[in-house]
Amino acid sequence: MDDDSRTARWELRAGVPLGVASLLFLVSYAVRVLGEGLPQPVRDLCLAVAYATWSLFVVDYAVRWRLSGQGLRFVHRHLLDSVVVLLPLLRPVRVVRVYDAWQRRMPGQPQMSLQGRVMLYAGLSSTLLGFASALSVYHYEHRDPHATIRTFGDSLWWAASTLSTVGYGDVAPVTPLGRLIAVVLMGCGLALLGAVTGSFSSWLMQRFALRDDAAGDAGGPPGS
Amino acid sequence: MDDDSRTARWELRAGVPLGVASLLFLVSYAVRVLGEGLPQPVRDLCLAVAYATWSLFVVDYAVRWRLSGQGLRFVHRHLLDSVVVLLPLLRPVRVVRVYDAWQRRMPGQPQMSLQGRVMLYAGLSSTLLGFASALSVYHYEHRDPHATIRTFGDSLWWAASTLSTVGYGDVAPVTPLGRLIAVVLMGCGLALLGAVTGSFSSWLMQRFALRDDAAGDAGGPPGS
Amino acid sequence: MDDDSRTARWELRAGVPLGVASLLFLVSYAVRVLGEGLPQPVRDLCLAVAYATWSLFVVDYAVRWRLSGQGLRFVHRHLLDSVVVLLPLLRPVRVVRVYDAWQRRMPGQPQMSLQGRVMLYAGLSSTLLGFASALSVYHYEHRDPHATIRTFGDSLWWAASTLSTVGYGDVAPVTPLGRLIAVVLMGCGLALLGAVTGSFSSWLMQRFALRDDAAGDAGGPPGS
Amino acid sequence: MDDDSRTARWELRAGVPLGVASLLFLVSYAVRVLGEGLPQPVRDLCLAVAYATWSLFVVDYAVRWRLSGQGLRFVHRHLLDSVVVLLPLLRPVRVVRVYDAWQRRMPGQPQMSLQGRVMLYAGLSSTLLGFASALSVYHYEHRDPHATIRTFGDSLWWAASTLSTVGYGDVAPVTPLGRLIAVVLMGCGLALLGAVTGSFSSWLMQRFALRDDAAGDAGGPPGS
Repeated sequence: MDDDSRTARWELRAGVPLGVASLLFLVSYAVRVLGEGLPQPVRDLCLAVAYATWSLFVVDYAVRWRLSGQGLRFVHRHLLDSVVVLLPLLRPVRVVRVYDAWQRRMPGQPQMSLQGRVMLYAGLSSTLLGFASALSVYHYEHRDPHATIRTFGDSLWWAASTLSTVGYGDVAPVTPLGRLIAVVLMGCGLALLGAVTGSFSSWLMQRFALRDDAAGDAGGPPGS
Repeated sequence: MDDDSRTARWELRAGVPLGVASLLFLVSYAVRVLGEGLPQPVRDLCLAVAYATWSLFVVDYAVRWRLSGQGLRFVHRHLLDSVVVLLPLLRPVRVVRVYDAWQRRMPGQPQMSLQGRVMLYAGLSSTLLGFASALSVYHYEHRDPHATIRTFGDSLWWAASTLSTVGYGDVAPVTPLGRLIAVVLMGCGLALLGAVTGSFSSWLMQRFALRDDAAGDAGGPPGS
Repeated sequence: MDDDSRTARWELRAGVPLGVASLLFLVSYAVRVLGEGLPQPVRDLCLAVAYATWSLFVVDYAVRWRLSGQGLRFVHRHLLDSVVVLLPLLRPVRVVRVYDAWQRRMPGQPQMSLQGRVMLYAGLSSTLLGFASALSVYHYEHRDPHATIRTFGDSLWWAASTLSTVGYGDVAPVTPLGRLIAVVLMGCGLALLGAVTGSFSSWLMQRFALRDDAAGDAGGPPGS
Repeated sequence: MDDDSRTARWELRAGVPLGVASLLFLVSYAVRVLGEGLPQPVRDLCLAVAYATWSLFVVDYAVRWRLSGQGLRFVHRHLLDSVVVLLPLLRPVRVVRVYDAWQRRMPGQPQMSLQGRVMLYAGLSSTLLGFASALSVYHYEHRDPHATIRTFGDSLWWAASTLSTVGYGDVAPVTPLGRLIAVVLMGCGLALLGAVTGSFSSWLMQRFALRDDAAGDAGGPPGS
């Protein structure tokens, strides 16, 4: 109990700074990758910021491990967090939680439906994931002589067609590292997209069922 | 309550004219895009009709916003309607609702099953969406020197292979605008198709369960 | 009631002959399409058999319409049957029903689970659908100068990659008719595959839940 | 009852040796396929080990058939096991069960959620399936003059893009045997992936619902 409350207090305090750090990491990584024409000092600064924020994530992970008092089981039970320490580009996915917390505290606002929130969460997560993957695939691919991904636009287009499982194949990674990132994107992204599709389907079903009831009671016009 | 009833009355009155306007918009846009050999006055007329119907959608949106008395929250809570004002090609999707209302009022007709209606709604919506996307992708692509989408037939074929997530990639958009429309199509279309698949699966399951009961009771022949 | 029982009697009597006719149609169509080197009389015979069996389907449809006494609503309510009359290649899908009826009547055999039967039904249907589509796509494609589908093996490979929505695109139809058939395959096939996936997922979930209970009660070894 | 308990005892005793044999089979097959530069005796040894372990699987199948006392129905009711005897590369999929049994017996560990275990099971199974398919597709493809799959890396990349149904098509099997294996991979893999997606979606939904309750009760910070 005590451990739990200390963890909760840590999360309350560290939430906003870590959220800011995540966005900083993403921005500095993006500038570093996309800004090839920028002067060297700016690019070095970006690298420094990226490493500094990464070390913050490691500190946060260590503190939470320590507070939990769980030993090795912590790694097993917080698998997502452990992966995020190794792949900090996935970190911004957690920003979604901040939006979620902010929205819950708005007084007087009607709560979104359960499915609506799952869709929002999974949709935002997969967008962030797609953007981060497009960045790193572009980073590893665009200088390869056989690459088909030559601009960041190509890379975004590739990420969208991969996340939706359409997979045209007009542009696709050819380097081993690019393909490794692509496999991670497939694994995480498809699960998230499956969640979006599943909740949309169940939301639509519920809405039709509700409209049936309303029509049966009042015979009124179809709701908006 | 008062606001609600005024909104309901507006929707009752504006429903049919707006449905007609949606179809007019789609037809005039289609003629404008596909009828490159038509005389200029006809093409200008189409453009005029398209803008006129678009302005109708804006007026409808404004009236409903005003009647709701909700301020900025209205944009948030009627997100689909807000998007439709910006992308009027998605408007015909709402026509499905007219068919739905018409079918509900037919006396003596047995109600379709819940899943049947979801499948119908989502199926029709995605067909309209695919057609509208094929139109605008064709519009932006067919004059590009590297385009693989050269005829409207290619564009329809591309839309079908995208909506079903098959994605052969033999034809695919290459211009930035074409790709942007493709991403919107993936986003909306896959959700709709997911709804079709989900309801079909649940309908099949229900039907098999029903047949089991019937067979258990009467040992009769399998129903049609 | 009387109409229903007459329809049921008709289905009981006509079931087996029509099932045989469906298979005859498929076989004769396959021989006609694939046997280009066969002597002309054999090919003419196949065409005759195909037309004869097709006319049987039309007769069956007409009789059932007549017996139902429903007028135009019959077309609406037996949509699948109506489509099958126009596209007799989809007819063999109904053969699955014969297997289903046969299995139900086997005494002493434990009933398959609901999900198992949905998977069997949808799996067999999509296999038949894929085979029939591969046949007709091959028929329309293989003589086109730009065709990538040149052998029946290519066509089967294309059908498998389409039904699974993988869509490599190394072979794909290029003629308008071939693409039309492909769109029908996407529409029907994806729904069927969605049903397979959905029932497999729910079957797996149920099985794990059962094993939990068993383990909780007896602490026994995991079941086979 | 007696048959059941004898089968259970057999499975208890044979479980670990057969699990080891499965891994041995996979490793020896992998060395045989990938180690083209190895000295001939090593490659012959691998072939011998592969055949020896395969014969073990046949013995296990025969013993369980005999113990069940079910005659031909056994083949029908243990369809998966029957297939595994013919395609021993699918055998390692059963290793997942060992992990499952090991995890259940750990005292003091909180049980994973139902969806978590389905995801783990289906995820591990599809990884093993993908690896095994990549091995045999590489085996049949890499010497073909028109092959696009030329290295084992290509083959793994192809397997990942097939299992996720993305299907870029930049590399794809061209030999009949390679395509046959690909169709089996599509069939098995998509079902497994469907299970992963379905359970992830339901797990996410449940988690959001739980968090709602917690927030409603205590107004606390969002859980980790």
